Amino acid sequence: MNTCAVVLAGCGRADGAEIQESVSIILHLSRLGVPYQCFAPDAPQAEVINHATGKVTPGGTRNMMVEAARIARGDILPLERLDPGAYSGVIFAGGFGVAKNLCTFAQGGDKGGASCDVLADVERVLKGFHAQKKPIGLCCIAPVLAARVLGTRKGGPGVKVTIGKDPVTAEAIATMGATHVPKGVTEAYTDEAQRVVTTPAYMFDAKPHEVYEGIGRMVEGVAAMLK
Amino acid sequence: MNTCAVVLAGCGRADGAEIQESVSIILHLSRLGVPYQCFAPDAPQAEVINHATGKVTPGGTRNMMVEAARIARGDILPLERLDPGAYSGVIFAGGFGVAKNLCTFAQGGDKGGASCDVLADVERVLKGFHAQKKPIGLCCIAPVLAARVLGTRKGGPGVKVTIGKDPVTAEAIATMGATHVPKGVTEAYTDEAQRVVTTPAYMFDAKPHEVYEGIGRMVEGVAAMLK
Repeated sequence: MNTCAVVLAGCGRADGAEIQESVSIILHLSRLGVPYQCFAPDAPQAEVINHATGKVTPGGTRNMMVEAARIARGDILPLERLDPGAYSGVIFAGGFGVAKNLCTFAQGGDKGGASCDVLADVERVLKGFHAQKKPIGLCCIAPVLAARVLGTRKGGPGVKVTIGKDPVTAEAIATMGATHVPKGVTEAYTDEAQRVVTTPAYMFDAKPHEVYEGIGRMVEGVAAMLK
Repeated sequence: MNTCAVVLAGCGRADGAEIQESVSIILHLSRLGVPYQCFAPDAPQAEVINHATGKVTPGGTRNMMVEAARIARGDILPLERLDPGAYSGVIFAGGFGVAKNLCTFAQGGDKGGASCDVLADVERVLKGFHAQKKPIGLCCIAPVLAARVLGTRKGGPGVKVTIGKDPVTAEAIATMGATHVPKGVTEAYTDEAQRVVTTPAYMFDAKPHEVYEGIGRMVEGVAAMLK
């Protein structure tokens, strides 16, 4: 079985990859015997948040790849080196870093929400795996990346994803030309046609083991389509 | 059931709490329905390591509690506020931060190894839970804290712990007046008399789901003794 890529947007729910989600992805891939390789953009985060206070650290700067290496135990590569031809599938962890670092969704306004910009390497990776009919897994807020890149508004085929039950995000997904499917935290949704598997994770105020369970469904869905 | 305390020494295997171990502890407590509260010392780490390169970041400074809040999703308290009378048990995650930040074990020499100094709040917490016969769980390198504080060399009763099969660390534990019990990564060892439960975790070059499984045994052992 070929290696599955895992994309992290840093290390921490408020400015990077949600840690418990990221570890849950890794634990399930390990449990299923799927080799994995972590990637992150070798670039500065949008901001640094003090996670004890929730406030922005003035002048704070951290590199997404260097921080994500904490989750990956040092074994990390820059996202620009992620070749969809060389991996069997890709999974994106969630966290506010996805909406701040990997795209402009968190910014709102013209470039946020439904018309958000997506990091060039993220768009390249998603389009590459999709074109090769390799599975794409995403959790929490990360499904907006698939909605934006594969949605009809950008000329894509459209895609069905879940981010749980949040009406504002669901509406943004619809405006992107994608379809939102409501699901609970322990569930995942598979768009068989586009080979995209999503689960809400911490889009809900859920318990850690519930997030772990839902991510397990998502990873199993991806693993079943790996090639 | 009363709340179990979880102690983290930062956020990252090389300078703080090992993230996958910390999340595994949280996932198993959540799965078992045990409420938990995370704590960390509100103090600077010994150093900051770039986890992508493994090198020290010159002039780098991070606060253990602020970093550990990334794992705890913001819900964290300073270790000085951990009152053993108010919690049903305590679990220490591993990571190099334990040996660098919570004690001087990593330093070697006179104050490292078997004669290492332990942070005053860590010693207070361990002695407090032990005196009240409340369970103490530790994984990876963290069992050296129990060996040092409860070992006969410091006038304690002695304690039996496992850190896996590493001969150097096992010898240090013996020199502390504690007993090392070899165990595999998916196993935990319970010292019934002292109510101390330990598991090797990433003291082995193990797979993530194996570490998760061993930590599950440790957390179950602690949960069975919570009061």
